[in-house]
This record gives sequence, structure tokens and C-alpha cells, in this order.
Amino acid sequence: MDDLWEKHRPLLDDAYRAWRTRDHWSAFPESPSPRVWGESAAAAGLTAFEAYRGEAFALDTPGADGWVAPEQPPTGIEWDIRYPHLTSDGAPLLVSASQAALPAWRDAGPHRRAGLVVEILHRLAERSFELAHAVMHTTGQGFVMAFQAGAAHALDRALEAVAVAVHEMTVVPPEAEWVKPAGRDRFQRLHKRYHIVPRGIGLVIGCTTFPTWNGFPGLFASLVCGNPVIVKPHPHAVLPLAIAVRIARQTLAEHGFDPNLVTLAVEADGEGLARVLATQTDVRIIDYTGSSAFGAWLEENARHAVVYAEKSAVNCALLESTDNFTGMTANLAYSLALYSGQMCTTPRVFLVPAGGIATDVGKRGVDDIVAALRTALADLTAEPKRAAALLGAIVDGRVAARVEEAMHREDVAIPSRRLEHPDFPAALVRTPVVLRTRFDADDAYRAEWFGPIAFIVETPSPEVSLTLWEDITQHSGGLTASVYSTDPAFLRQAEEIATRTGVLTALNFTADTYVNQTAAFSDFHGSAANRAATAAMTDPAFVTHRFHIAEIRQPR
Amino acid sequence: MDDLWEKHRPLLDDAYRAWRTRDHWSAFPESPSPRVWGESAAAAGLTAFEAYRGEAFALDTPGADGWVAPEQPPTGIEWDIRYPHLTSDGAPLLVSASQAALPAWRDAGPHRRAGLVVEILHRLAERSFELAHAVMHTTGQGFVMAFQAGAAHALDRALEAVAVAVHEMTVVPPEAEWVKPAGRDRFQRLHKRYHIVPRGIGLVIGCTTFPTWNGFPGLFASLVCGNPVIVKPHPHAVLPLAIAVRIARQTLAEHGFDPNLVTLAVEADGEGLARVLATQTDVRIIDYTGSSAFGAWLEENARHAVVYAEKSAVNCALLESTDNFTGMTANLAYSLALYSGQMCTTPRVFLVPAGGIATDVGKRGVDDIVAALRTALADLTAEPKRAAALLGAIVDGRVAARVEEAMHREDVAIPSRRLEHPDFPAALVRTPVVLRTRFDADDAYRAEWFGPIAFIVETPSPEVSLTLWEDITQHSGGLTASVYSTDPAFLRQAEEIATRTGVLTALNFTADTYVNQTAAFSDFHGSAANRAATAAMTDPAFVTHRFHIAEIRQPR
Repeated sequence: MDDLWEKHRPLLDDAYRAWRTRDHWSAFPESPSPRVWGESAAAAGLTAFEAYRGEAFALDTPGADGWVAPEQPPTGIEWDIRYPHLTSDGAPLLVSASQAALPAWRDAGPHRRAGLVVEILHRLAERSFELAHAVMHTTGQGFVMAFQAGAAHALDRALEAVAVAVHEMTVVPPEAEWVKPAGRDRFQRLHKRYHIVPRGIGLVIGCTTFPTWNGFPGLFASLVCGNPVIVKPHPHAVLPLAIAVRIARQTLAEHGFDPNLVTLAVEADGEGLARVLATQTDVRIIDYTGSSAFGAWLEENARHAVVYAEKSAVNCALLESTDNFTGMTANLAYSLALYSGQMCTTPRVFLVPAGGIATDVGKRGVDDIVAALRTALADLTAEPKRAAALLGAIVDGRVAARVEEAMHREDVAIPSRRLEHPDFPAALVRTPVVLRTRFDADDAYRAEWFGPIAFIVETPSPEVSLTLWEDITQHSGGLTASVYSTDPAFLRQAEEIATRTGVLTALNFTADTYVNQTAAFSDFHGSAANRAATAAMTDPAFVTHRFHIAEIRQPR
Repeated sequence: MDDLWEKHRPLLDDAYRAWRTRDHWSAFPESPSPRVWGESAAAAGLTAFEAYRGEAFALDTPGADGWVAPEQPPTGIEWDIRYPHLTSDGAPLLVSASQAALPAWRDAGPHRRAGLVVEILHRLAERSFELAHAVMHTTGQGFVMAFQAGAAHALDRALEAVAVAVHEMTVVPPEAEWVKPAGRDRFQRLHKRYHIVPRGIGLVIGCTTFPTWNGFPGLFASLVCGNPVIVKPHPHAVLPLAIAVRIARQTLAEHGFDPNLVTLAVEADGEGLARVLATQTDVRIIDYTGSSAFGAWLEENARHAVVYAEKSAVNCALLESTDNFTGMTANLAYSLALYSGQMCTTPRVFLVPAGGIATDVGKRGVDDIVAALRTALADLTAEPKRAAALLGAIVDGRVAARVEEAMHREDVAIPSRRLEHPDFPAALVRTPVVLRTRFDADDAYRAEWFGPIAFIVETPSPEVSLTLWEDITQHSGGLTASVYSTDPAFLRQAEEIATRTGVLTALNFTADTYVNQTAAFSDFHGSAANRAATAAMTDPAFVTHRFHIAEIRQPR
């Protein structure tokens, strides 16, 4: 068993070193190229994925009663994948089964657990194509994005959390000799043993848009700390997490552990299973990604648990001046269009001084900026294949309705257009809608409009933009921000606000890095410093509340 | 300014290394001997302490209105020390003044803050005698204990928390270069900066019995992470924390920082100031030691803050067998008598099989154990000076009333005796009262009887003792446990329960180490794994929620 620790220890060491130095590093290949994977991998992954369609997904969920097929793929393809159905009646049975799995897993200790968890990650990585198809169809992401964010980067984020957790669990030795001088040639001598105590059952509440990227870090961090984990996917994005749970269970069972250390709890839309599970008092850790409203409900009602939540964010872009006007507008347009603004990191509010901004091509007013964004968005979406890969599909009716709502506003500056998807005719593909408003016109832009919707907000001055940014972030939360300025004093002020509010802030992104992308081992996603999140992937606080330390001491 | 970092860095490095290896280590001398301190230190400390009596304690507390002298020294000496009085009207002013002090302290960064905080600890260490007198008179501890626990060990615990906090804040570099290959000879290059974001104002709610030992770790951990700290001492134990706050303020001001980074909020008995301060939403960290009831109130009502609480504990001692009967009973008697059982770590419930236990002097029944404890307690308290040094004084009327209540029970096995204090005639000195009950007689022993009160609880078997121990710990909380057994299988079972419940457990303590003493850098005090505490001094979780990390990234 300890073979797995020896086998995977070098990777964990590398991962921890990368996390500390924060240079670029990755354990899992993000390119789906045959040069990396060989000629047959893509086809084999597709075949494996296809085999799920129209079938019952073979998986044991203690307490489950019957089957449920809740997914509605935004790509519109035939689906009908059935999963074991958990109702509120079954929830206590599932919790009991999870709890029963804890002792042996706890007693295995951090190193054996770490070896096994990294083994699971490797096996998941081998299924990258299969996972990518599952993510693409449940989220509507383009395939390359689904491959990268849904497999490689999700696994990197998981490995990152596991590496930090292993470090924190082993920073104290398993045993120590304590020898205290107690007068002439006398000593007090104690032998001490320190055991890691798992906090208790972890519950991962998944989201529709990034089920693995947002779900894996908490899942594997809890698991490596000795906690059984119940995965409650969003009813519309089950398959990617179901695949992960099955592989985890198989790997655990193969190595002599109770597969119920990782379980899947699937419900139909609107059954409220997350509430039922979150209020089981044996659930002691909750990882959640989703709306602020349910996040607040969890914090209010799941008081027996530590809640790591990622909630809504109103991410701002501040335009003060630039030496690359075309690069700026192209970069912003791409960030907005990427996966149709269905990222928690998408810029949503562009704060622009009404008097315009200084640029490399002269003063540019708000009209000019709108025009440039329109052109950039048109360029990005001109070619159907490329447009579909960038925009993906609208994930669900709520986002579609929000686009409609935006389109009915009086302040539409760039309307959304409906495009055909070259591969999935039933998919809803929409270009972003950009609204234009004054900072004091109404409060609409202060809420998150999740989807391909952005506000250009005219402010009296760059200084007001700064104030407004801080205010929006404090009240509505912020995960990312973009600041464009050639003025060092303005950038300094912006950095101060970023530091006060804990927003991951990009200064002058004009080329091929985008504010909505964060890199494992280098970028912190979330900071827990404002309303958008109580979790940062991965800072030390993300792992340290998942375990305790028990001590036994004995005279020698 | 950075001189202080360079000056104190070696000590912090040593402290962190000691914390990791967990051998005996201490930064501050625990012996009040003139061989350590020189001939004049003791007298100078006494003089400094005496100067406070009958005077107004010079200290600025923003928002304070008038003066208050709430202390009632258990040693019974004349006191009348007046402090600035904070009422609920003044609380928001104090919070505003704290908040105003934050930015410059945050911007100083972890290293400058660490240098300054360790400087404060050193200056406090120089006042060890003065602190010891303040602790002795406000808590009733014997002088040597007050010197050790109130000064040296409290400072060690503070240094420990600071060292771990500094490590966690600096585990990630302040800046990094991120270079990602992006195709043939192309790279994405970002410069990244990581800033520590303090969580917000810290509130330390002190206790009567160990105001500095329990108060310093949270105070200095919050401070070094960039958070201003409001210290709200128990109205009966103000002076030790007032001295610490004054020295902290002086040191901060001397080095150009706002002294309001550390403030003192004193109330009269029953004014409810802790509730008022805890519900100020700018208070984001609370360190609390005291009753479970108020701890639960904080957790329920101070939801904007992370609460590190140490609450009630029903610590058990399990007697199964021993190869040193005299050593065992002497050790238990000492642990119970030490500071009259007024320690959160005092053993309170002795679980003994009704059929007796095997010992080196033959089978010993419950009667024999009672007799041996009676003898041991009599020996410990036979000589008045020694008895007073060991027992100290009863801290307040609530403990005195509890002793009376116990003495009126029908099951008194060893009655409490009142002793004269050789130095402080007005002090109330009581030997422990030991009650004897059956495990199923009533539930009295399942609650914490804080004070010199213990229950000998007869159980049907050692196995029932184990079950009962786990049950009591889960329901009432446990900070320490003692297990006496010569049976490796029994000890193994005990270690499993200790691991499940996170109780610091001592196996077969029969000599001069005691279960109620924990050593900084080696022993974890609390584990957060059961109801007794949500804090462990010092595990990583004790510090990681006191700060966040903000990131700024910029193309190179």
C-alpha cells in the first residue's frame, strides 16, 4: 500500500514546491493533441463517453432508491443517463455509510491516503478525453475548454489542494521525544504521538458550469485529510462527477478501503437534496459553488460544518488609459465572450470615465470604446467553428432568460446575436450583449448578471471608478478585476484597493492572457476577503480546517 | 525598522523549528530565580506592581468615558486600580479607531510586523515579575505558578502562535515570475505580487484564571497578521492584560505605528461589553476563553467573525491498572489540587471499575483509592506555605459557591477543608472536595464543576469506563485525559478514543509531569475536535483564518 506513497511522493513534492515558488507548473497535460496522447486516445475517450448515453450509470449509492436522469445537455444531444436517486429518506443512510468508512481511512494516515488520492488523480487524468466530453455536454463549453478546465486544470487544482493539505498534516511529526531539564542531572521525559483527526464527512455541492474544476479541490482535499466525501452534483451536471466518483471508489476498493469514502448523491431538479445533506450534523465540511443566496443559507443553517463557499461576483474592469487600445478592447471582448460569460471570473462591469481615456491612438470616448468592443466581438464570432469553440452553448434557461431580459433594456449598446452551432444544432449560442449606463442611473449593474452580459458604466472620473469598484466589490463580491492604465499612480491606487478587497487583479492585460483564467500553483482563485468567497484555491486556510491533531503523551 | 526583523528573526526561526520538532524548547525563562534574573529583578518587579495600586492606570482607550475599577483580588489585598471605562456608546468609537490603524500596519508587511511583535514579547518578558504579581493577585494563583503560566509560558505560547503565523504568511513569496510556454519559442510572462490581507479587527475576550496564558496567543497571532486587536479582559482580571496592552502600545508608537492597533476595553461586572463588541461587524476575529454558554452565544451571533473559542471541559481520568499505585494517586491528587482545580485542564471525573483495579501493591478497590487520594491530598496540603503555593486562592464567589454545593451533596467522599493563607489572610483557600458516585446514579458528573471538585465515578468495568469517557467527551467536551493501565490492549483502545475525540491524553503519569500542564512548542492545547474548543494552540488552523492573500498580476 505504501508503494503508492513512494510512487507519487515525487509528484507531491514537485507540486508543493511549485505552489511555493508560484512559477508556471502543471502535472497534467492541457493539450488534447495526439502528440501528447497518441493517435487513439481521442477516439477511445469518445467511445467511453458514448457508452454512458441511454444507460444506467453503474454505481452504488447507499440509501438510494430507484433511478433519476436529471441532466438536460445544453448541447441538446440525446442523453438519458440514469443515476441512483437519493431522496431525503435515504440521506441519513448515506451519511451513516460514509461515517462507517471513516475509521480505517483515518487510521491509514496522511501518507497512505495521499498516495491513494494521487493515484485516483492519475487514473482520472487517463480519462481526460472521456471527462472532457462529459463536461462539454453538461456545461456547454467548447471541447478544448472542457478538456483543459474540466480535466487537466481541474486535476492540477486538486493536486495543488492535496499537496498543501499533505504538507499541513505532516508539518508536525507523528511522534517526538520531549526532554526537559528539571534540575541537576534530572530530566522530565515524555514520548508524544500526534495523530491527524479528520474533521468529519465532507459534502461537495457541485455547480453546472465547472463541475470538476470547482468540485475537485474540496473533494480531494477533504479526502486526503481523512474525511469521507459525499458529492452532490448539480442535477444538470452529474456525469463528470459521477465518472470521478466511480474511479475514486474503484481505486479505494482495489486498495482495501471502503468505497463509500466517496459517494454520489443525485437528485432531480428542485428536490432540495443539498439542504437535506447539509443539515445532517455528521456533515462537518461543505464545499459549495453557486448562488450567493444558497451560500448564505448554508452559512446560516449548516453551523455544525465549516463552509468553503464560492458565490456570486461582480467583476469590474477599470479603463483609465492604455498604450494599446486595440489590444485592450480585444482582450476584454475575449474575456467577455469566453464560454459566454458563464464564468465566475468573467468581467461584467466596465467602468469608463465619461470624458474618455487617453490611448496610443489618441483620446477615445465611450462611443469609441463601444465601437471597438463591437468590432472585436464581431471578429471573434465571425467564423462559426471558432465562435462556437469560444462561446460554447448557453448552459440553461436561466441564463437564456437573463440575456432576454438584458436585450429588453433600453440601454443596449451592443445587442446579442443568436448563432448556429456547427456541431450541435439544438444548442443555444449567443454573442454577448453589452449595456451602457451611467453610474448613477440605476443599480442593475451592481448585481451579478451571470451569462454573456456586460455593462459599460460611465463614471465622472477615473477616481470615481476606483471608489465604485471598491464599493461594488465590498457589497456584491469580486473574484477578478482588470485595470488598464499607463499612470503608475493610478495603478498603485488600484493595487491598494485590490489588496484591501482581496480581488485577483490583472493590470494591463492586452495580449493572450485573460483575467478569467487562473493557473493552479500560481494564482489564487478567490481570497475569502470579500463577499464572493469564503475559500481560496488554494491558500493554507482552504485545507487547515479539514483536520485536527490529537496528541498522546507518555513518560519514557 | 527592519532592524527588529533582523534582530528577532533567529528567535522566530528557532521557535518555528522547535514547533516542528516538538522537543522541549522555551524562549522565556520560567524560573524566577535570582541566578537567572539578578538580585534586584524581583524587588523591582514588586515595586512596579505596587505602583499601580490605588491609581488610575494611564492608558488611552478611544471611546472611553470615565473610569472603572472592577477587580476584586482573590488574595483580598487593597486594590482600587482604575481603568478607562468603555460603555456600549463608546464601542463604535473604539472600533473606528482600531480600523483606522489597520492600513499602515497591513502595509508594513509580515516581516516588519513580526519584528515589532517579538520586540513587544521581549519587553513583556522583562516585566515578568511585575506580570506575575498582577496575575497572582487577579487570579489567586501561587506566585511561582503566576510567574510561569502568567509570564514565561504565556509568552512562549504567544511566540509559538506568532512563529506559525509568520510561516503561514510567508510560505508564499511576495512576488513571482510566471513563464508559461505557449508554442514554439513563445511564452506567456506575468509578474505576480502577493499581499497579505488582514482579516479585520481582532477581539480578545479574556478569562479570570489565565488572562495572559489564554489571551496572548490570539492577541499576538491576530496582531502579527496585520489585524488591530481590542482586548476585553474579564472585569476581575484586568491588570495583567492592561500591562501588556500598554507595553504593546508604547512599542508600536515608538516605532511609528498607531498605538490603537492594541486597545483595552474595560467594563464593570455584568455590563455586557463583550456582546456589544462582538456584534460590531468590523470585528472579524474573536478569541474567547470562558463558559460554553457564552461561547455558544458568540458562535450564534458573531457570524461575521471567525471564533476561536475555548469553552468548558469535563476531563476524565481512567483507572484500569497500574504498576505504581502511590505514584498514580499522588499524581492525580496533585493535578486536582493544583490551583484548586481552576484550570481548564484539571481532571474532574475519575472513572474507576467498581470491582477495583490491579496494582503493584495488589488489588485496590474504590475505597482504597479514595483513601489513597485522601492521604495524598493531606500530604500536599499539610504545610501551610506549600499548600497555599499549590492551591492558590479561590478565584471568585462562583467557585466558592460550587464548592459549597458539592459539600452539601450526600456523596462526599473527601470533604474540602478551609486553610489559612500564610500571606493573604483574606484569601479563601480550600482543599479539594471529592465526591463518589455510581456511573448511573445521576448526571451531575457530566457537567463541568469548575473548581476544586472531583467525582470518583464507579463503573461496571474498564470497558464501560472507555465508553463513558468517549460519551462524556463528545457531549460535554474534553481538553485533557489521564489513562492508567498496564494492559497494552487497553492503552491502545484509549489511544483510539483520544484520536477520535481529539483529547490530549496522558498515559500513566505517575511522576512529576501532570496532565494539566501543556508545553508550548510541543503540546497542543485543545484540538477543535470536540465541544471543548474550536481552537488549538497552536495548530495551523489557529492562524490561517487570520489573514487572506490578495494577488496582482501584470504582463512582463
